[in-house]
Amino acid sequence: MNKDKETSMKKSDITKLRLLDAATVEFAAYGIAGGRVDRIAASAKCNKQAIYAYFESKDRLFDAVFDRMVEETVQSVPIDADDLPGYAARLFDHYRAHPEVLRLARWHTLERNTPPPQIALDSASEKLAAIRTAQEAGTVTRQFKAENLLELLLTMSRVGAEGSFEGGEAAPNTHELRRTLVDAVQRVVEPRQLDS
Amino acid sequence: MNKDKETSMKKSDITKLRLLDAATVEFAAYGIAGGRVDRIAASAKCNKQAIYAYFESKDRLFDAVFDRMVEETVQSVPIDADDLPGYAARLFDHYRAHPEVLRLARWHTLERNTPPPQIALDSASEKLAAIRTAQEAGTVTRQFKAENLLELLLTMSRVGAEGSFEGGEAAPNTHELRRTLVDAVQRVVEPRQLDS
Repeated sequence: MNKDKETSMKKSDITKLRLLDAATVEFAAYGIAGGRVDRIAASAKCNKQAIYAYFESKDRLFDAVFDRMVEETVQSVPIDADDLPGYAARLFDHYRAHPEVLRLARWHTLERNTPPPQIALDSASEKLAAIRTAQEAGTVTRQFKAENLLELLLTMSRVGAEGSFEGGEAAPNTHELRRTLVDAVQRVVEPRQLDS
Repeated sequence: MNKDKETSMKKSDITKLRLLDAATVEFAAYGIAGGRVDRIAASAKCNKQAIYAYFESKDRLFDAVFDRMVEETVQSVPIDADDLPGYAARLFDHYRAHPEVLRLARWHTLERNTPPPQIALDSASEKLAAIRTAQEAGTVTRQFKAENLLELLLTMSRVGAEGSFEGGEAAPNTHELRRTLVDAVQRVVEPRQLDS
């Protein structure tokens, strides 16, 4: 009996995982309004009812996809406040290696805009604490409040990942852009005499 | 006869303009897949057929909305390469005053991703030329290639306009964030001795 239950739980976990993977691809490509539950079910080799049984609705399925992506991202790219240029570069690399991350984040902003999951809030608190510690130690400038500096660094790390229509279609070389990001963050965070 | 023609042309121009305005609101809110031609027609007090007569399709109507927004944006916020922190601040202000700008830009990236209109390319060329001139004059650092610097400045100017899930829901104060942007851009562009 126990063994049966375990087997059936595992099956449902596997089904959920397959649905999440298929939904990640679908939502990253088409968003919530454009995403099709039929395609997700077909791609996950489930029937459509399984989606509603496990996730209630298309919106909730998107939330589950988004929360998982956020969790993976904040865990994969921890902050190193003693090397903020390196942190920015690792974020830059992560966004390049996982283009679905910023696509899902943008669909979320445009179509859903629910509060971020708890893990994002916890991670933000840790990041702010790390920046403040580095500011007190004098390795990061005190010219900026930690909240504003973090927000700016996160934005800078997205350079080149979003088409900026004002820049035309220049599409600068990735390697050069990464170098520019690292050097620019270095300039932004370095302590100055007027800090003290 | 001529007068009749003129009157009818004006009417069609007015209809087109009303459709563009209504479509801007609809597409900024819901994007292309989520946007409804019926709502646009109702809001513009036209019948749906007028949309297809003037713009052919929902995609083409979006293109017309996007192109107009790009033209207005590049014309409203010209570059001043002798004051790049001020340029970034004016872009920041423009995005705050016109939230539809970045929403349309993001829907465009996610759902359409056609090449930018000619006016964006021309404007980008002008911006790059202005930055290069300032670099030659020694008022802007030569550490970065103009293409990479422009891309970075445009990205930085969007700070706070896109929710960055890694930052939690900090939502820093707009006034402080603008000040941070200005000071950070100053740090990024200032010439240094190693430039020469």
